[in-house]
Amino acid sequence: MTNLKQVAELAGVGLGTVSRVINNHVSVKPTTREKVLEAIKQLNYVPNEVARNFKMQKSNLIALLLPSIWNPFFSELAYYIEDELDREGYKLILCNSGGKPSKELYYFDILNQNKVAGILGITYNDIEDSLNNDIPIISIDRHFSKTVPCVTSDNYSGGRIAMRELYNAGVRKPAFIGVVTKVFSETMLRKQGFIDEAAALGLDYVVYEEPDPLMDELSFFNNFFAIKEHHEIDGVFAITDMFAARYIEQAQKQGISVPDDVKVIGYDGIQDNTLFHPILSTIRQPVETMARTSVRLLLQRIEGVPIEHDTYRIPVEFRQGKTT
Amino acid sequence: MTNLKQVAELAGVGLGTVSRVINNHVSVKPTTREKVLEAIKQLNYVPNEVARNFKMQKSNLIALLLPSIWNPFFSELAYYIEDELDREGYKLILCNSGGKPSKELYYFDILNQNKVAGILGITYNDIEDSLNNDIPIISIDRHFSKTVPCVTSDNYSGGRIAMRELYNAGVRKPAFIGVVTKVFSETMLRKQGFIDEAAALGLDYVVYEEPDPLMDELSFFNNFFAIKEHHEIDGVFAITDMFAARYIEQAQKQGISVPDDVKVIGYDGIQDNTLFHPILSTIRQPVETMARTSVRLLLQRIEGVPIEHDTYRIPVEFRQGKTT
Repeated sequence: MTNLKQVAELAGVGLGTVSRVINNHVSVKPTTREKVLEAIKQLNYVPNEVARNFKMQKSNLIALLLPSIWNPFFSELAYYIEDELDREGYKLILCNSGGKPSKELYYFDILNQNKVAGILGITYNDIEDSLNNDIPIISIDRHFSKTVPCVTSDNYSGGRIAMRELYNAGVRKPAFIGVVTKVFSETMLRKQGFIDEAAALGLDYVVYEEPDPLMDELSFFNNFFAIKEHHEIDGVFAITDMFAARYIEQAQKQGISVPDDVKVIGYDGIQDNTLFHPILSTIRQPVETMARTSVRLLLQRIEGVPIEHDTYRIPVEFRQGKTT
Repeated sequence: MTNLKQVAELAGVGLGTVSRVINNHVSVKPTTREKVLEAIKQLNYVPNEVARNFKMQKSNLIALLLPSIWNPFFSELAYYIEDELDREGYKLILCNSGGKPSKELYYFDILNQNKVAGILGITYNDIEDSLNNDIPIISIDRHFSKTVPCVTSDNYSGGRIAMRELYNAGVRKPAFIGVVTKVFSETMLRKQGFIDEAAALGLDYVVYEEPDPLMDELSFFNNFFAIKEHHEIDGVFAITDMFAARYIEQAQKQGISVPDDVKVIGYDGIQDNTLFHPILSTIRQPVETMARTSVRLLLQRIEGVPIEHDTYRIPVEFRQGKTT
């Protein structure tokens, strides 16, 4: 049976270096790493170091419940959550709910009954009564009345910043467009920030919303284009980037030019690649910080360390694109 | 203790209907579903049906090892894999390797030692010797010489189709651009299909590749723009959509107009939303079928049912965009 020492001898390095390579520390030089990996391969060594750091038991499985991993905002969030969990020796179980209450209930039941170590939940439905106090939960974007801490971006400030940036770009008749869920979610504060800032600037504004989920996207925009103030609107703050992109697409079909006729700001900042045109002006969510904060709070709760606040609102910033 | 029968009585439906709602079958009418969920809520029923279908044990945990869930191709794949596993009572553990061989080895060690039921792996590195025959593995896009079945899109036909579509769009001096990995991967057949079709059409063609991972993307394109045949090239087949999008961005900076000067076709078909402009012409990968096939084969292997083929190549199709 090969041991760590033999690997270290063959590679001509110390035990600590072998351990760092196995545990994937960034502080190892690439040439050294190669030597160690070569020795591991030659000796066919199964690193028990790894096993010591991680044994897959229910107690180190964390479930991430989200609407859909296919959505770029959620896949970025999941990427950082997995990274942070891995650093701490936890593994991530992925549960896509499709946003359906019945599937969320189904997953909560499974997770409750099977005692995962904890749950990170992103849900916009009314499933309050199904939460079980036995398993630590951290919620993202959503408050439950029970003692579930919530991590979110600073949606309210984001709404105010978006309105102010529209104003700075010359907008005098702004509109907020979005969908509204039955239960309160932090994301609703985007609208509130928009309203308060518009009022502070002494502007007339429009709010146009329909219930989530939208049954017919096209009819949403047709309804919006049909409201009587519509021809006056010269700026749009959309509840998400996807919504902003869809608005731009539909507006163009109406002969409305962005940003000449209407300035547009989204929310999320999912456009980190060159495929997206036009590049949206947007309120960038601090996805990485949100992910790592959620994991840290969940592990705190698992370890029984008290959590100071109900809500952790991470600052956002405006990112200038080509639509304002 | 509330039981299923009481829920069925209160909701005024049969036992089977309650079970279908709990198990999230699509065949239940929305109004009926609501009635059942309401009854479940009123009675505070914890569905043991769910527990019976799923008990979280090592034997129903499947690991998905992929470079990054943040990549839209992989997040779409993960979405369907999770959906298919959930139907069969399995849960998905998500492992992002970052494409690094050391992290892939680390995950394989963890998974080997902890005996998950199976592994779905997407890896483009040389980690052959670390595979363990004890745990069923299905590979996506990559062949291992050991008996690991591989599920992939029909990359070779995709390459031929792409070349033919470029030709139909008027291209007479085509180029293939991409990166090349050290170990053989099915994705290399995209280039081979391109070459064979160009030859069959009697065309002169260019292949420009650099080793994966690219250290400097900008220098890749500058090198490509500097090759002597470059001014003759009137069509580009890029190894992925992301690569095609980057080419378009860099080409525009050189004053090259797409599709007027150069027609472009990508591979993947990740652009299923309105944020992307220009809409790429592309070879669409059958992501959903690839995902469900991989899961089905993995479960077959777990159950000891022999798998007929080494490789499952799922047909692709051309999707017309605005770049040809």
